[in-house]
Amino acid sequence: MEPAELQSKIEALEAALKTATAVNAEAFYWWCTALMVAIHAGFLAYEMGASRAKNALASGVKNLVAFAFLVPTFFFVGWWIYNAFPTGIIPGDASGATPWSANMGPNLADNASGIFWAAFTLFAATTASIMSGSVIERIRISAFTILAIVLGSGVWILGAAWGWHPSGWLNAQFGLHDIGAAGCVHMVAGFFTLGVLINLGPRIGRFNADGSVNEINGHNMPMSLIGLMLIVMGFFGFLGGCIIYTGDTWMTIYNTPTTLSAFAFNTLMGVSGGMLGCYLVTRDPFWMMSGALVGVISSAPGLDVYYPPLAFLISFVGGLVIPKLNEILLTRFKIDDAVGAVAVHGFGGVWGLVACGIFASGYPNAAGPAVSFYGQFASMVVFLLLGFIPGFVLSYILKVVGLLRCPPEVEIAGLDLAEVPVKAYPESRIPAFGDGSLSPAE
Amino acid sequence: MEPAELQSKIEALEAALKTATAVNAEAFYWWCTALMVAIHAGFLAYEMGASRAKNALASGVKNLVAFAFLVPTFFFVGWWIYNAFPTGIIPGDASGATPWSANMGPNLADNASGIFWAAFTLFAATTASIMSGSVIERIRISAFTILAIVLGSGVWILGAAWGWHPSGWLNAQFGLHDIGAAGCVHMVAGFFTLGVLINLGPRIGRFNADGSVNEINGHNMPMSLIGLMLIVMGFFGFLGGCIIYTGDTWMTIYNTPTTLSAFAFNTLMGVSGGMLGCYLVTRDPFWMMSGALVGVISSAPGLDVYYPPLAFLISFVGGLVIPKLNEILLTRFKIDDAVGAVAVHGFGGVWGLVACGIFASGYPNAAGPAVSFYGQFASMVVFLLLGFIPGFVLSYILKVVGLLRCPPEVEIAGLDLAEVPVKAYPESRIPAFGDGSLSPAE
Amino acid sequence: MEPAELQSKIEALEAALKTATAVNAEAFYWWCTALMVAIHAGFLAYEMGASRAKNALASGVKNLVAFAFLVPTFFFVGWWIYNAFPTGIIPGDASGATPWSANMGPNLADNASGIFWAAFTLFAATTASIMSGSVIERIRISAFTILAIVLGSGVWILGAAWGWHPSGWLNAQFGLHDIGAAGCVHMVAGFFTLGVLINLGPRIGRFNADGSVNEINGHNMPMSLIGLMLIVMGFFGFLGGCIIYTGDTWMTIYNTPTTLSAFAFNTLMGVSGGMLGCYLVTRDPFWMMSGALVGVISSAPGLDVYYPPLAFLISFVGGLVIPKLNEILLTRFKIDDAVGAVAVHGFGGVWGLVACGIFASGYPNAAGPAVSFYGQFASMVVFLLLGFIPGFVLSYILKVVGLLRCPPEVEIAGLDLAEVPVKAYPESRIPAFGDGSLSPAE
Repeated sequence: MEPAELQSKIEALEAALKTATAVNAEAFYWWCTALMVAIHAGFLAYEMGASRAKNALASGVKNLVAFAFLVPTFFFVGWWIYNAFPTGIIPGDASGATPWSANMGPNLADNASGIFWAAFTLFAATTASIMSGSVIERIRISAFTILAIVLGSGVWILGAAWGWHPSGWLNAQFGLHDIGAAGCVHMVAGFFTLGVLINLGPRIGRFNADGSVNEINGHNMPMSLIGLMLIVMGFFGFLGGCIIYTGDTWMTIYNTPTTLSAFAFNTLMGVSGGMLGCYLVTRDPFWMMSGALVGVISSAPGLDVYYPPLAFLISFVGGLVIPKLNEILLTRFKIDDAVGAVAVHGFGGVWGLVACGIFASGYPNAAGPAVSFYGQFASMVVFLLLGFIPGFVLSYILKVVGLLRCPPEVEIAGLDLAEVPVKAYPESRIPAFGDGSLSPAE
Repeated sequence: MEPAELQSKIEALEAALKTATAVNAEAFYWWCTALMVAIHAGFLAYEMGASRAKNALASGVKNLVAFAFLVPTFFFVGWWIYNAFPTGIIPGDASGATPWSANMGPNLADNASGIFWAAFTLFAATTASIMSGSVIERIRISAFTILAIVLGSGVWILGAAWGWHPSGWLNAQFGLHDIGAAGCVHMVAGFFTLGVLINLGPRIGRFNADGSVNEINGHNMPMSLIGLMLIVMGFFGFLGGCIIYTGDTWMTIYNTPTTLSAFAFNTLMGVSGGMLGCYLVTRDPFWMMSGALVGVISSAPGLDVYYPPLAFLISFVGGLVIPKLNEILLTRFKIDDAVGAVAVHGFGGVWGLVACGIFASGYPNAAGPAVSFYGQFASMVVFLLLGFIPGFVLSYILKVVGLLRCPPEVEIAGLDLAEVPVKAYPESRIPAFGDGSLSPAE
Repeated sequence: MEPAELQSKIEALEAALKTATAVNAEAFYWWCTALMVAIHAGFLAYEMGASRAKNALASGVKNLVAFAFLVPTFFFVGWWIYNAFPTGIIPGDASGATPWSANMGPNLADNASGIFWAAFTLFAATTASIMSGSVIERIRISAFTILAIVLGSGVWILGAAWGWHPSGWLNAQFGLHDIGAAGCVHMVAGFFTLGVLINLGPRIGRFNADGSVNEINGHNMPMSLIGLMLIVMGFFGFLGGCIIYTGDTWMTIYNTPTTLSAFAFNTLMGVSGGMLGCYLVTRDPFWMMSGALVGVISSAPGLDVYYPPLAFLISFVGGLVIPKLNEILLTRFKIDDAVGAVAVHGFGGVWGLVACGIFASGYPNAAGPAVSFYGQFASMVVFLLLGFIPGFVLSYILKVVGLLRCPPEVEIAGLDLAEVPVKAYPESRIPAFGDGSLSPAE
């Protein structure tokens, strides 16, 4: 063959390999997206199980509404925010992410926008679901929907633009290292939730007149545990969505090289460490599984760099501490967080970011300064405020206009009676499992 | 290096890339198949939850039997039908799909037949499961098994050969565009089910003497909702199985180019639109999750071409209308469809095909005329009849010979007592949850 | 272009394709790992459902503890055992698998160790979960944890080194063919469990004074069935983890070529055959789904070579026989295996290995003699002893020191009261579902 012919064959091969890579990347994120739906199935099971039977379906509806509204709002607004605001609050050029862009739809020349948008949309749904469990059994579905949209298609994605984007200013300014989105997803959602809980107030009967606490338990703990294990499975989709498939080296969101093998080591070690930490201090299976989440979140910022036993230890410490923080929120600050999401996601994220400043200090970034305790701490404060302020302000407004919370008589009777036209367990003669009437067979 | 040497290296690379593509395609469909098992897990949860407790296990057994019988029957018959009948009812050459073919087993020279067969087998199982939920609480397991085999390894796959095959006559003749199998899977299953329901009749107690309707609710709505969310996850396997991985451009089943990104956009928008449409008209979480299916089905035919907000709207309309259609079937035509599958899958598929004729009219096909309203409508009628007639005729025969339905006393006592040697909830003292005896601890 | 330039471009392409393959392999095993978490979610649902309500959470905690402890112990010990002991009991060089190795952590030059370790860790968790279900409702969580660690991070992985490793002595010596790990995972776990059950003894009330058997049923059969279907889904992760992704031909663990298509054919046929075999002899949905496992295990050793209808038949025979074996263990030998794991996994594995000696006899191995009945039988005996002896000895020691079993009063009251600080169903007034108190609404 002539050199010219050889050259053209080589060029064809180069093009084919490039196309194959684009296609394989699509396939990879397609499965990420699918597994993140498992997170949503898991949250659904987890929240319904964590509700008393009289509120089970209302909790579920809330979760479904969040998912359903986030998809279009994230299409019209969220994706653009991510692309427009990496440098702060002045929007940059994000013409490829506007809803009228040729990239935001079927486009044979774009094998990336749709699949990345989808993965991010599921991130958004996860973010809203984090809040969802905390506010069950008294929030209005309408108010929750508004809060979920603002959180999922607005606030967290602004945090992602700032701190989980190749050009985000937190990375450029502070050298923020947060590979697994502990800040923009978990902290933002956790502290947004804290803001909401302050205005929402505790469930009726949660506290006695003297301030002492009554137990309120979900009606179906096994369902919650299974749900939480589905969430762990789904985290492989979530964390897969945190790595850039280039077909060559895997890259972090900050354009530093990594491997999926590193993620595999530290994800499992994190899950395990968090579970064992929580087990040691609580013996409670609900907290063990919450500990799996604490573990993932604690190690998330440094998945690419930690020696696996270090990830285990960081997550173990997270697991030891978080249940106590939840208890302090409850007993000292009278925050009635039905599932502990503020502690798990909010303080879990704080610990994850700070731990990365301690243990990965000095690790170089592709752009911006090296990782440092100061940079991690400062970024953490940014995420905390970014989550808390809008959650507090918006829920305050909803409270003032009387839309935030169900009336007390609805709460006592159970939200399902007022907000859901069907029954969770229609055959049960146990009042709390249904309406108290005898089953038809009797 | 000499040109000859370079040439041989280039040829080796070309071969290696081709092999890599074949292997990656196998991996892609392997995960499609796995996630479609989640559809089956979902249907299992959904149907058991939608049954009264006295029938829960019988519903589950039915579902398991369908899966178990479809695998071998689809191996021996179904796959051959798909390959033999694209042109109509005269079988063509399908020697590679006969059960004695060297392709139908481990074959180092064939990295495709097994994995495609597996994905199609799970499609078949899905098809049978669609019928399964509608006929619970009174059909005999034996009759259901026969119907499931005919539907899953016969009828739908003939529809797939006709309308969801590169050489299918509906595409060649009418320019049918149905990327996501709304016709051959959903419509065929839905109208087959309608045919069965007509002969099967309503559950005892569903209608009063004056024709008014009594509510019959499943015993465990949370279980149904979780199951439905698992089905949504599984749909990523199903829709992944609707796209051809070539390693170069993704292709639709009709050999037109597409991207997985387009599928990602429109799948999520469809799910969301359907959920919100159903939510608006029902506020019922069961219908919201059925709406997710309505949404996927409504947008399925045009996943490759719709602008995502259009997919949202099409699915939203589907979600608005389908619950009403289900009610009309129930109140006007006395069709007792326990889960609404005729409306969701049957009419959802009708709307999906017709909508594609409205909104994608003029889109070119690789073979056959361009997409048109007429072509979509005509194909829709074909699928409707292809599903309805065998379902009606076969169930009529089963009815005449007295094999279709359980005796009334069995139905009243609960099918589990007669057809299942174990109890769903043996500790419950609630009659409907068990046998009415006291629990051992009392 | 000059030949030198062309050559450098070719070399770049060769390197790029090699990297792409390494990256795609990581992605493949990442999904394997994720789906094996579904096995764990499934076991959790299955075991809690198979427990009486008074023990449901204790069963769940046991399962979670196993997972949590196996991750770090498999990191520190298990992976090294696999790499050090293929030739028997003298450790070879396994420096890349020691916990201080540069391969055992993030390493930009190693895209394999982490992801393989993760997949193997989930295999280990599966192994421990197999035992977990059998010993519910009377074992101490502490004793179980010790047994689970020894089984999951010690015994089975030694079996894997011997018989499921490219250089394993069982392959080299006997030509062992066990593609799908029926021996090292299922048989070892099954017979380890048998050893434990002998020392643990039956649940109180399982046998009458005259030796006759009382039924003890799980409190939530639907939950168990859904769990088992999730396990079937997860088996696609497990079996995916049994094939070597090279980007060129797929290889078995013994370095013989195969295809994922072969796995797809025979996995589904095995699931189906096992389900139908069990259905025929029991009509019991719990056994049908256990039959799905029997089926996978029966066909697992020859997934790469069986003609699919042969896999169906082998698994069908397994499904016919295994429930009877479980009954014999119960009635003749008074082995109270709460979920039948000894029969399903232990004898299922025996049948799988032996069947492969019958039907794949003469199939060549890359190293070692061809497959033979003798070689399969001898290997089977090795796995049987390797599992049974440590399980029996260790549980005997635990029994002697009084740590193995809960005190009878705890067992009668329910393990949840003693070992778990929360209630499974706090609202239930049925004693077995809670504490017997009336629900708050009364």
